[in-house]
Amino acid sequence: MKNQVDLVHWDAEELGNHHRILSERYEAYREQKISLDMSRGKPCREQLELSAPMLQILPPDDPLRAEDGSDCLNYGGLDGIPEAKALFSQVLGVDPKELLIGGNSSLTMMHDTLSRAMLHGVYGSELPWGKLPKVKFLCPSPGYDRHFAICELLNIEMIVVDMLPGGPDMEQVEQLVREDDSIKGIWCVPKYSNPDGITYSDETVDRLARMKTAAADFRIFWDDAYTVHHLTSKPDELKSIHAACRTAGNPDRVFIFSSTAKITFPGAGVAVLASSERNLDLIRRQLAVQTIGPDKINQLRHVRFLPDADHVKRHMEKHAAIIKPKFDLVLQKFEAELGGKQIASWHKPNGGYFISLNTLDGCAKEVVRMAAEAGVTLTKAGATFPYGRDPRDRNIRIAPTFPSLAELDTAMDILCLCVQLASIRKILSER
Amino acid sequence: MKNQVDLVHWDAEELGNHHRILSERYEAYREQKISLDMSRGKPCREQLELSAPMLQILPPDDPLRAEDGSDCLNYGGLDGIPEAKALFSQVLGVDPKELLIGGNSSLTMMHDTLSRAMLHGVYGSELPWGKLPKVKFLCPSPGYDRHFAICELLNIEMIVVDMLPGGPDMEQVEQLVREDDSIKGIWCVPKYSNPDGITYSDETVDRLARMKTAAADFRIFWDDAYTVHHLTSKPDELKSIHAACRTAGNPDRVFIFSSTAKITFPGAGVAVLASSERNLDLIRRQLAVQTIGPDKINQLRHVRFLPDADHVKRHMEKHAAIIKPKFDLVLQKFEAELGGKQIASWHKPNGGYFISLNTLDGCAKEVVRMAAEAGVTLTKAGATFPYGRDPRDRNIRIAPTFPSLAELDTAMDILCLCVQLASIRKILSER
Repeated sequence: MKNQVDLVHWDAEELGNHHRILSERYEAYREQKISLDMSRGKPCREQLELSAPMLQILPPDDPLRAEDGSDCLNYGGLDGIPEAKALFSQVLGVDPKELLIGGNSSLTMMHDTLSRAMLHGVYGSELPWGKLPKVKFLCPSPGYDRHFAICELLNIEMIVVDMLPGGPDMEQVEQLVREDDSIKGIWCVPKYSNPDGITYSDETVDRLARMKTAAADFRIFWDDAYTVHHLTSKPDELKSIHAACRTAGNPDRVFIFSSTAKITFPGAGVAVLASSERNLDLIRRQLAVQTIGPDKINQLRHVRFLPDADHVKRHMEKHAAIIKPKFDLVLQKFEAELGGKQIASWHKPNGGYFISLNTLDGCAKEVVRMAAEAGVTLTKAGATFPYGRDPRDRNIRIAPTFPSLAELDTAMDILCLCVQLASIRKILSER
Repeated sequence: MKNQVDLVHWDAEELGNHHRILSERYEAYREQKISLDMSRGKPCREQLELSAPMLQILPPDDPLRAEDGSDCLNYGGLDGIPEAKALFSQVLGVDPKELLIGGNSSLTMMHDTLSRAMLHGVYGSELPWGKLPKVKFLCPSPGYDRHFAICELLNIEMIVVDMLPGGPDMEQVEQLVREDDSIKGIWCVPKYSNPDGITYSDETVDRLARMKTAAADFRIFWDDAYTVHHLTSKPDELKSIHAACRTAGNPDRVFIFSSTAKITFPGAGVAVLASSERNLDLIRRQLAVQTIGPDKINQLRHVRFLPDADHVKRHMEKHAAIIKPKFDLVLQKFEAELGGKQIASWHKPNGGYFISLNTLDGCAKEVVRMAAEAGVTLTKAGATFPYGRDPRDRNIRIAPTFPSLAELDTAMDILCLCVQLASIRKILSER
C-alpha cells in the first residue's frame, strides 16, 4: 500500500518504519539546539526599515502644525489631526467625520471601547453592560487570541462560532443573536482573517449588517487589521460593513478598528476607529475625560510619509515583496511534506499575517510541544479559540513574517516532522 | 475714608464714583475686541521649542534598540524601555522596578487606573469597586478639574476637603477615611498644587501615609505633575510619599503619576506610573490585554534628549526663564490693583502652572463672565471644585504660561478691573 500517499491507508508496519525514519530526523534537529520564536505575527526588521525614513521626515524648521492650524506639540485635538482623518478616510472608505484617530495601538482602542461599554454602555444602551447579569460575545474561531483575552478580562462569556470559507457560520450567528439578548457583540477579523487568512464574502457582510438581534445595542467589533496587507496583485475585496449597516437600517451597529502597526511600525504606528457619528460623539465625550489627545506629531509623521491611499498601496507592495516568499515557502513545505497525506489541511491566504494549519483532531498540542522541544516556539495550541480551548485540538497558527527564509525553512521542516510523527502515533493509537 | 485702601471701609458714594471710573476703563477694553484664551495650563510656543531638537535626535543610522536589545520599532516591552525607567527612577526617587512607563498622557494612566479599579479592583480588593453599592473619593479643593471629571464619569461620589497652606485638611481627611469604608481614595497634586501652587508639608505626607482607613484597599492618587517645575532657585521640597507609605506599613497605598507633558511636549511626551511592585504586577496583567505596549521610539527620543535628572533640571531652568516673568507680572498686577483692598487673596507659588485667585464670596462667576465679555477666557468659575460647584463661588484659576507678556498684561488689567467692579457691587449690595 506504500504507493498510497494517504497515511491512513498504510499498515502498521509501514507506519512504524516511517515513524522511525522521521524520528531520527527530528532527533537530529533537536541536537542542533535551534531557538526560533514564531509565536506572534511580527514584521521582520527588513519590513520595519521600509518606514525608517518616516522618523526623519519632519525637518528641523517644520512649523509642526496641522492643516487646521493646531500646534501638534501642544495639547488639543482629541480625535486626531484632519490630514490623518483624510488618509484613513481613503483607506477605510468612510467619511472623515466617522473617524477617530488614536495612539499607537488599535488593541487599546478595542479594549477601551469594550471597557467603556461595560462601564457606561454604548450609544442606545439602556444600562452599562457591566450592570447586566450576563454579557456574551460571539467569537468566530479560530480567531485572534487578544480579542478573546479582552472578553476574558471583562468577564464576557464567549460563544464559539465556526469559521467557514466565507466567514463565520451565519446560520449559527443569526440564530444566536436573534434568541439571546445577552449577546452584545461579535468579534470579526473580516479580511485575511487571523489566523485563517479568509476574507468574508459579500453575503456574510450583508447578513451581519441586517440580521435581527435581540439586543438593541448589539455591536460588531470589526478588526480590519489587514485591510491593505495583500500578498498578491489580485487582492481579496471586502464589502463595506459600514455602508451595509447603513443600508440595512442599522447605522450604529459597527465599530471598525485598524492601524498602521503593520504598515509602518508595530510599536509606533497610528490606530484608528471608524463608526457612526452618533457612536463617535458618545465615545468622544468619554475620551475627553480619559486623555489629553493622541500623539499628533506621530500622526503628522505618518501623513507626511504616506499622504494618501496610493502611497499606502505602493508601500504595502514593498512589504509583500519581503514577506510573500516566506508565505510561499511555508505553503511549499506543507505541500511537499504534508500534501495528500490526509493528516493536515491549510488555507492559502491572499494577504494578512498568518497561515492556519489544521492537524488531525487531537494533535495540535502535541505538535506544538514537540516543535518547542526542537527549539521552534509556535503560537500556543488552543490560543486561537476562546479560553485557549480548541475543542478539536487541531489548529496551529503559523506566523511566517518575522524569521528569515533560512530560519523558516528549518522551522517548517521541524514542524512538518512533528505533524507527521504526531499523526502516525494518532493513527496507530486508533487502530 | 478714601485714604484707606480697604474698599470695605469706603462709603457708598466713594464706591459709586470709583465704580464709574473703573467701568469706563472696562468698557474701553471691551471695545478693543480682544480675544485671549487663558483657560488651560498650556506651555507657550517658546517653551515647546526648547524641546524641538528632540525630534531630530535619532540619527538615520540609529539601531533604534533599547539597552536590553529590544527593537523599539517592533512589538514588545509592555511597561517601557529600561533607560526610561532609569530616568524616571532618578526624577521620582523610586526603584526602576516600581515604574511603568506609558504613552503620551498621564491623564490616561490616571483614568485607566481608576477605570481598572472599578472593573477589576486594585491589589487586595475583595470586589471590583464597580460592584460596590457606592464608591467615594476625597477631593481636596480647589483642585484639578480633570481629576474630578474622571470621578464623575465613573459615578464616584466626590467629597470636598479643604486645602490648607500645608495641603489637604488632614483632620477632615483622617476622620472621613477612618469612618467610611466606601471612601476608596483621594486625589492629590502634592507639589505646586493645581491651582493653589501649594506643596504638601512633610507632616501631611506622613499623615496620608499612616492614616487608618476603613477601606483596606484605599489608594492615594498622587498626581506629581509639577515635580521638577520650579520657578525659583530655592524650590519646594516634597517628602517621598512612596517611602512614607512603606515606612508606615502601607506599601501599596499610593499610585504616583507624572509625565513630561510640561517638560518636553504636552501632546507627545511620556507618562509614568510609580507604585509598589505588587500594584504594578496586577496592572501589568491587565495592561497586557489592553495594549501592545507604549511608543518605545518616543521613549528613546526622550532619554537621548534628557539622559538623567541633571539634564532635566537644566532643561527646566530654561522653562522657568521663559515663564517666571509671566508669573511675576500676574503677581505684580494683583499687588498693584488688588493689594490691601480686602477683596481678593492669592498664593505666590514657587513652581507649577497656576496662580489661584480668591475673590470675595459670590464673585468668581461674575468676574469670569465679565472677563469673557471683554475677550479674556479664563478657566470656568467652579471648575476647581467637584461637580463644578465652588461652594463660596470665589476661586479663579489663572494660567499665565501660554499668553505673551503683552497679552498677559492686558488680560490681567481686565481681570483686575472685573474683580474690583464685581467686588464693589457685592459690597454695595450687602449694605
